[in-house]
Amino acid sequence: MPGSIFGKAFQVSTWGESHGRGVGAVIDGCPPRIPLDERYIQAMMDKRKPGQSAASTTRKEEDRAVIMSGVFEGMTTGTPIMIMIKNKDAKSDSYKPFANLYRPGHGDFTYQKKYGVRDWRGGGRASARETAGRVAAGAVAKAVLEMEKIKVTAYTLELGGVRAKGIRAKKNHLDSVYENPYLCPDPDAAVAMDKRVCEIRQQGDSIGGIVEIIASGVPAGLGDPVFDKLDAELARGLMSIGAVKGVEIGAGFEAAVKTGSTNNDPVLPEGFASNHAGGILAGISNGDDLVMRVAVKPIPSISIEQTTIDINNQPETIRVGGRHDISAIPRINVVCEAMVYLVLADHLLRQRSIQK
Amino acid sequence: MPGSIFGKAFQVSTWGESHGRGVGAVIDGCPPRIPLDERYIQAMMDKRKPGQSAASTTRKEEDRAVIMSGVFEGMTTGTPIMIMIKNKDAKSDSYKPFANLYRPGHGDFTYQKKYGVRDWRGGGRASARETAGRVAAGAVAKAVLEMEKIKVTAYTLELGGVRAKGIRAKKNHLDSVYENPYLCPDPDAAVAMDKRVCEIRQQGDSIGGIVEIIASGVPAGLGDPVFDKLDAELARGLMSIGAVKGVEIGAGFEAAVKTGSTNNDPVLPEGFASNHAGGILAGISNGDDLVMRVAVKPIPSISIEQTTIDINNQPETIRVGGRHDISAIPRINVVCEAMVYLVLADHLLRQRSIQK
Amino acid sequence: MPGSIFGKAFQVSTWGESHGRGVGAVIDGCPPRIPLDERYIQAMMDKRKPGQSAASTTRKEEDRAVIMSGVFEGMTTGTPIMIMIKNKDAKSDSYKPFANLYRPGHGDFTYQKKYGVRDWRGGGRASARETAGRVAAGAVAKAVLEMEKIKVTAYTLELGGVRAKGIRAKKNHLDSVYENPYLCPDPDAAVAMDKRVCEIRQQGDSIGGIVEIIASGVPAGLGDPVFDKLDAELARGLMSIGAVKGVEIGAGFEAAVKTGSTNNDPVLPEGFASNHAGGILAGISNGDDLVMRVAVKPIPSISIEQTTIDINNQPETIRVGGRHDISAIPRINVVCEAMVYLVLADHLLRQRSIQK
Amino acid sequence: MPGSIFGKAFQVSTWGESHGRGVGAVIDGCPPRIPLDERYIQAMMDKRKPGQSAASTTRKEEDRAVIMSGVFEGMTTGTPIMIMIKNKDAKSDSYKPFANLYRPGHGDFTYQKKYGVRDWRGGGRASARETAGRVAAGAVAKAVLEMEKIKVTAYTLELGGVRAKGIRAKKNHLDSVYENPYLCPDPDAAVAMDKRVCEIRQQGDSIGGIVEIIASGVPAGLGDPVFDKLDAELARGLMSIGAVKGVEIGAGFEAAVKTGSTNNDPVLPEGFASNHAGGILAGISNGDDLVMRVAVKPIPSISIEQTTIDINNQPETIRVGGRHDISAIPRINVVCEAMVYLVLADHLLRQRSIQK
Repeated sequence: MPGSIFGKAFQVSTWGESHGRGVGAVIDGCPPRIPLDERYIQAMMDKRKPGQSAASTTRKEEDRAVIMSGVFEGMTTGTPIMIMIKNKDAKSDSYKPFANLYRPGHGDFTYQKKYGVRDWRGGGRASARETAGRVAAGAVAKAVLEMEKIKVTAYTLELGGVRAKGIRAKKNHLDSVYENPYLCPDPDAAVAMDKRVCEIRQQGDSIGGIVEIIASGVPAGLGDPVFDKLDAELARGLMSIGAVKGVEIGAGFEAAVKTGSTNNDPVLPEGFASNHAGGILAGISNGDDLVMRVAVKPIPSISIEQTTIDINNQPETIRVGGRHDISAIPRINVVCEAMVYLVLADHLLRQRSIQK
Repeated sequence: MPGSIFGKAFQVSTWGESHGRGVGAVIDGCPPRIPLDERYIQAMMDKRKPGQSAASTTRKEEDRAVIMSGVFEGMTTGTPIMIMIKNKDAKSDSYKPFANLYRPGHGDFTYQKKYGVRDWRGGGRASARETAGRVAAGAVAKAVLEMEKIKVTAYTLELGGVRAKGIRAKKNHLDSVYENPYLCPDPDAAVAMDKRVCEIRQQGDSIGGIVEIIASGVPAGLGDPVFDKLDAELARGLMSIGAVKGVEIGAGFEAAVKTGSTNNDPVLPEGFASNHAGGILAGISNGDDLVMRVAVKPIPSISIEQTTIDINNQPETIRVGGRHDISAIPRINVVCEAMVYLVLADHLLRQRSIQK
Repeated sequence: MPGSIFGKAFQVSTWGESHGRGVGAVIDGCPPRIPLDERYIQAMMDKRKPGQSAASTTRKEEDRAVIMSGVFEGMTTGTPIMIMIKNKDAKSDSYKPFANLYRPGHGDFTYQKKYGVRDWRGGGRASARETAGRVAAGAVAKAVLEMEKIKVTAYTLELGGVRAKGIRAKKNHLDSVYENPYLCPDPDAAVAMDKRVCEIRQQGDSIGGIVEIIASGVPAGLGDPVFDKLDAELARGLMSIGAVKGVEIGAGFEAAVKTGSTNNDPVLPEGFASNHAGGILAGISNGDDLVMRVAVKPIPSISIEQTTIDINNQPETIRVGGRHDISAIPRINVVCEAMVYLVLADHLLRQRSIQK
Repeated sequence: MPGSIFGKAFQVSTWGESHGRGVGAVIDGCPPRIPLDERYIQAMMDKRKPGQSAASTTRKEEDRAVIMSGVFEGMTTGTPIMIMIKNKDAKSDSYKPFANLYRPGHGDFTYQKKYGVRDWRGGGRASARETAGRVAAGAVAKAVLEMEKIKVTAYTLELGGVRAKGIRAKKNHLDSVYENPYLCPDPDAAVAMDKRVCEIRQQGDSIGGIVEIIASGVPAGLGDPVFDKLDAELARGLMSIGAVKGVEIGAGFEAAVKTGSTNNDPVLPEGFASNHAGGILAGISNGDDLVMRVAVKPIPSISIEQTTIDINNQPETIRVGGRHDISAIPRINVVCEAMVYLVLADHLLRQRSIQK
C-alpha cells in the first residue's frame, strides 16, 4: 500500500529510484497564481549538491529540475505540478559486487524481505537520491509560504561530536548559517567539524550529528488535533528522512528532566517569555518560532571491513568503498527544510479550509 | 481539515472531549473473525486508570468501554467497530475560573487561535481524556497482532531525573515491568521515583520522564517507503500524544555521536549482532525488536503560581490547583503501547495487500 | 480496508449495523462556530421516518439523534462531531429463519463471501438503517451550507412506472415537494403513485422509481479535477446508497442521443441559456442549479416466493415476509439529499483551502 | 485540495495538461514481481489513438509511454511506477482565438471561476489528453488483474442514436468487439454508425452514445461497505471521465420500472439465474460478470456557430473549428476499461489486506 504521499491539502508524492531514469515529485493542491519557475526550484536544489564541504563527495552532479506541468506563464495553475530530475547515466557497475550482499545499515535486507526482490543499484528507492524530489517539492511549498513571510532554516548543531555553542543567544544567528560550508552558525565549531571530518575520512569511517531547524513567521493556529498535530506531522516528516533516528520539538528530551514550573512557558501580553514548547502547544502552533532537532546517524557506507551475509544467508565480509559522503550533514539540512516546508504548506491550506 | 484519523488499512478515528458526553473510537478495516469482547478491551483500558502510583490522582474513574458495533457473537465482522466510553458527570465547575485565562503549557491559547472558540471544560479535545479512545482502539489492534505473536511493552526508563539501570542487560526485563506501580523494570529506580514524586507533590510542581517501548515478534518487511516508513509512522503516532516532546528509534540521539563502524549492526546468519537500528532499516522492520523512546514533558497543571494572560490579553497570574497528576508517567505508558499497536496493525494489513 | 469514510475536508464516517446497539456518524473537519443542535439534526432525521406514505411500513421508529461531542454551547467547536442513534431492541428473531439462507437481491451472499461471516440480523451493515448516520451527518453539512444559501431538494420523479409531468416547467416546483406523502411535485402523479403502491402491496411485491435532486445556490468553482470532479463525487455518493443502480447528471442518458449543437448550453452574460450540463462543466460547478437523477431498484424483500440457496449451497425457496417497505422511495429521498449535502460541504471547504 | 488521486491500495495519480511538456501517471501500491514492460503498456495506449474510425480526427499522434521508475529487469519492484508520455510540440496557436472566450460545453468558464486563471491551450488539465495517463495506469492494473484472470471489455452499445442489437444474447459477443472500428459487437449497427458519423461531420456537428463495459472473472467479495461500495467506486471512476453524464450498473434505470419479483436475481447452486444486479450486491461483487453502461455526451467542440461570452462577460459568437473528433466514442472506450481496471485492482488488493 502506497507510502509515497505526504500531506492532505498540499499533497506531494515522490517517485523514482537511484539508478532508474529519473526521480521527481508530483505536487497536487498547490494554490493557483503562485509565482514559480525552474530557477526558483533550482536554487533550493543546489543546496543539496555534493562537494560543498569535505563531508560530502566531490562527485559532480548537475541535478536539473524541470517543471513538466502545472505552471503556465510563470504562475501555478492550481493543477498538479510535476517536477522531474533526470538521472545521469550512473554507473551501477560499482554496485554489482554488492548485488548479492546485504550492506550493513542499509535497506538491502529489509527491501528484500518486504518485496521479495530489490533494485540493488545504489539503494534503489531507499537511496538518498529520492530526496531530490522532496527538495523540489519543498521549493514549491516554500514559494507558497513566502507569501505569508514564513521561513525555514536548518543548520548544523553538532557534527561528529563537535557541538556549536551559544548560537541561540546570538541575535540573527540564522543569517550566519551560510557563511561556512558546514552550515553551522558557530564559525569556530565549523572549523573543528572540518578537522573531525578529515580525521574520519582518513579512517575510512563516517559520522553523524544533529541538525536544528527553525521555522519563523508561523502564525498561531496551524496543526490539527489529534493525530495530525503539527509536532506529530513534523516528527513524521523528519523521521521519514533516511538517516534520521530521533526528533525533538522545543526542549525535547530536556523536558523529561524539567519540572512543570520550569518547563511551562509563561504567557505575557507581548508573547511567550520562553520557548520550551518549540512553538507548539497541544499540537497547534502558538505564533512563536518552531524549534526542532533531528539526530542524524553516520552514513552506513564505510570502507572499513564489516560483517554481513549474502542473499543465501552465508557469512561474508564487505567493504563499501567508493566516493561516499562522510556524513549526511550538511547535505541533509536542506532536506529537513523541505520537509518542514511541506508540513507547513499543508497545514496552512488546511487551516484555510475551516476559516472564512 | 480532519486530523482525527490514524492509519490507512487499519484505520482509527477518535471522537470526544473531556467534559462532553463521552469519548470513543471508530476502528475501520479490522479483519473479520478476530475474537474480541469488552473484557479484552477493558483489560487494556484499566492500565490507563488513575491511582495506581503516587504520580497520578486518586480520583476514581470507572471508564467502561462499550462495543457499539462491528462485533457479533464474540468475533469481529469486518465492519466498523465503535467503542464508546461515557464521560461521568464531570465537574466542569472547577474549570470555570480558567474559562477566560490561558493556562501555561496547555492548548487553551492555541485552540482559541485556531478555532476562534474553545471548550474550556477540562481541556476539551486537547485533554488526555481523548487517549481513552486510542487505548480502546489499541486493544483491538492488539487482538489482531496477538494472532501473529506480536507484543508491545512500554516501561518507565526515567522519571523526574531518576533513571532505571541495567535493564536491557537483564534477561526477560519485560516480564518485571508490572511488578511496581511505576512500571519500571529496575525496582530500585522505582523506589527512588516514588520518593521523587512525593517531593515534587509537596512543592506543588510536576515532573516528566522517558518511556521506552519494545515491540517484539515483529516480522521483517513492515513499513512503506518513503513517507510511511515504519519509524516515521511510529514517530508521528508517539508524538501525537499530548505530553511527548521527543522520539527516538534505536540508538536515537546517541547515533549522532557514533561512527558508521560502531553504529552499523553487523549482520550474521542468525540475525543482527546488535540493534542500534532499533529494528528498522530504511523504514522497514528487519525482524529484530523495535526499540523506541519518548520524552514526556512535565504535566503543565501545577499549583505553583504562574504568569499568564486572559482572553483580552491582560496580564494575570494563575494557580491550576485540583487533583492533577504529578506526571503523565506511568499512565501514559499504555497510550504509547496503543499507538505502537495501531501502527503495527496498520502495516501488517498493508503488507498483506501486496503479498499473495 | 476501510470504506466507511466519505469526504476529504468535511469528512464523515458512519458506524453501526441494523440490529447492534446503535448507528451513527463521526463528522470531522466541520468548521467551528456553526450553530447546531439536536433539534436541527432531528428535523432532517424525521424525513427518513417510516409511515409517511403507503409505500413504507407503519412500524413506529423513534430515531433520536444525540450529539455526543464536537458541539459546545450550541456551536460547533471544530473538533469531531459524533452523532449517535441508539437501536431499539429490534426483534432479530424475525430474521432467524433466514440466518442460513441468502435472500435474493440482498447482501447476504456477498458479505459471506467477503468476510467469511455475516451478521444476519436484519442485514447488518448492509441494512438501510446505516443511512440514519448519513442523514445525521447530512444535517451537519446542511447547517454549513445554509450559511452560503445552498439548498438541496430531492423529489420523486417516477414511482412504479408513474412519472411526474411538467414539473421543471413549473415555477417554484421545489416548494410543492412536501405537499404530498410521495414527495412528488406533480400532485396528480402522487395520486397515481399511491394507487400503484396499493396494488403492488396486494401482490406482495415491491417497486422502484427515480428520484431527482436539485441543488440550488451552488457557487461556480466547486469540484476538483480530475478524479474528484463534482459529478464523479456525486455519482459515488449517490451510488453508495444501497438501492441505487444508476446516476445521471443534467441531460444524463438523454445526452447520448443529442448532438453537440443541441446539448451545449449557450453562454449569455446573464448565465447559461439551458442546463443540459446539470450545473457542472469539466467536473466543476458552473453556478447553475445542479440537477441529478438516481434509479432506485425495487425493495428486494418481497413476500412472493423466490428461488435461492442456503449457506451449504443447497436449493431452497424463501418468502421474506414482515413489515417491509414497498419502495425505498420516498424514504430514500432525504438520504439522497444528505449525500449531496456531504459532497457540497466537502468541496466548499476544499475550495477555501486554495483561495485567499 | 488534491483531486488527482484514485484508489487507496492501488493508488494512481495523473499529472499533466494538454499543451504542457507531457502527461503521465504515478502508480503506487502495485505489488512487486508483476511482469511489466513498455510494450505491454503501449498496446493499451494504442487503443486510444485517433484515426481508427471516422468518428475521430486523422491527426497523427504517437503517444509513447515511457516507464521512468518502479520497474527493474522486467518486473515491478513494489515502488512507485511513473509513466510519462511527452507531448508533441502541439500548436497552441490554434487555441489563441479562444483565449478570451468561453467555449460552450467546455471547462473554460469553470476553471476560470475556480482558479482565477486558466491554461487556455487546448483545454489544459480538462483536456481529454489527461486520460493518456489513466490508460497507462490502467495497463498496469490490467497486468495485475490478468494474473487473476480478470478481464475488462468496453464496447459501443449506441452511437448517435444507432443502437447495437441482440448482443448480450450472442455467445462470445466480447470476442467480436475489435472486428470493426466502432468497437461495436453488432456489425450491422457499426455500418449504420459509420453512416451517421459521416452525416454529422457534414453538418459540422457532433454526437454522443452509450458504452457498455463488462468485467469478467471478478471473484465474489470485492468492494467495501459503505461508501466504497464497488458500484460507488465504479460510478465515480467512470463519471470522472470528461464526457460521461450518466452511469448504470446492471439493470440501471430499467430497475426503476421493475418489481422486486422480476428484478431480484434468483440464486441457484450453480450461480445467479439472471444478472440484473450487474454482478454487485450491497456494493460487493457476487462472482457474476460486472455490467456497466455510461452515457457519453457529444463532443462540445463543433464548427457550427454558438452563443457565448468573453472573459469580460460580453456576448460573443464562436465556431470551434479544427480537427476535432465527431464523437468521444470509440476512443473513450479504452478509458472506460482503464477506469474499471483501476477500481478492480484497488479492491483486489484491499480485499487481500483483510484476508489471511
